[in-house]
Amino acid sequence: MKLNTADIIAMDDRYRAKFINSLSGFKSANLIGTTDGKGNHNLAIVSSVFHIGANPPLVGMISRPHTVTRDTLENLQATGVYTINQVSADMWKQAHQTSARYPAEVSEFVEAGLTPECVNGVAAPYVAESRVKFALEVREVQNLAINDTELIIGEVVQVLVDEKAITADGYIDIEALKTVAISGLDSYHDTHRLARLSYAKPNTNVEEIE
Amino acid sequence: MKLNTADIIAMDDRYRAKFINSLSGFKSANLIGTTDGKGNHNLAIVSSVFHIGANPPLVGMISRPHTVTRDTLENLQATGVYTINQVSADMWKQAHQTSARYPAEVSEFVEAGLTPECVNGVAAPYVAESRVKFALEVREVQNLAINDTELIIGEVVQVLVDEKAITADGYIDIEALKTVAISGLDSYHDTHRLARLSYAKPNTNVEEIE
Repeated sequence: MKLNTADIIAMDDRYRAKFINSLSGFKSANLIGTTDGKGNHNLAIVSSVFHIGANPPLVGMISRPHTVTRDTLENLQATGVYTINQVSADMWKQAHQTSARYPAEVSEFVEAGLTPECVNGVAAPYVAESRVKFALEVREVQNLAINDTELIIGEVVQVLVDEKAITADGYIDIEALKTVAISGLDSYHDTHRLARLSYAKPNTNVEEIE
Repeated sequence: MKLNTADIIAMDDRYRAKFINSLSGFKSANLIGTTDGKGNHNLAIVSSVFHIGANPPLVGMISRPHTVTRDTLENLQATGVYTINQVSADMWKQAHQTSARYPAEVSEFVEAGLTPECVNGVAAPYVAESRVKFALEVREVQNLAINDTELIIGEVVQVLVDEKAITADGYIDIEALKTVAISGLDSYHDTHRLARLSYAKPNTNVEEIE
């Protein structure tokens, strides 16, 4: 079927949110760990983390200021540091629970049954149950005036990962670590590898590698 | 294992690219369709498409100006319109082939064996083989000075999707349409749904829905 702008405008708000969130394809599932610097840990699931560049190592995410990620935004602006923790099939329901609207002084770690992991030199808490996680220093927080969301850009300063999941060429086998994907607002998926493909060149068919 | 900034800086460039690209989690797999307005169609696979907001319906992507997406960027700036086409398990290898460095006047549709689909009123070509696809008008192209990439924000103006994949609440079952996910630079995955989860509330455990 074909839908145009008028059809999209006519949708009920909640229907439109689920519909439009489905369009961009599968999304990353990550828990953002922050602290307010007074001992209050915060944890929020986010599906908008995306790669910006490898050198320097930059990762972006979108935050909606008036939603449950408000504490996350305030904390990372105040402390300049946050962690991103991949959500796995072993704790995806706990991860989703962090999206409930808890007061700022309540720790989503406690409410969701996840364990804060503190690493010397990093002010923000990691999630102990996550098997691929990294700490970032805030490089930019930029308001996107078009819909009043915030683009947060961080530089990766530390990575914690199972060494055996790192392949010889640097790729991390996140499927072997049971990382999940999200579609829409609330659907969680595990994955099965089709294959890795060779670097594409003109007039040569891509091949499966490994 | 624990890696810090010095370890990341010491990595070989190609190793680092694969490593850092793995950190953000699963990524969307989309083909970007554009035209130069002189009859030359362009098609490029991109893994950086992400949701920005549902009302207005906004989708973002990151473009590296000096890579194979250069033609895409020039075309969408010149014409103001582009299409995003989800990559499915039926054509993921053809989709990957579009990442080869073809000259501007060569159509990646032809080289990869994919079919341009032209819809009245939309200047950019869709991919006929894609089962969830949408057209966007360019709203912003913003240089991210931190690593000289371009953030492109588009507003969804048309959606083409199998009606039977749209659930009653607006969610599109992109897994049923065989949409794939990407990890790292070159790994493709199909998915299996764990479940959809209910809207999370404090002091109430999330439940599987449907």
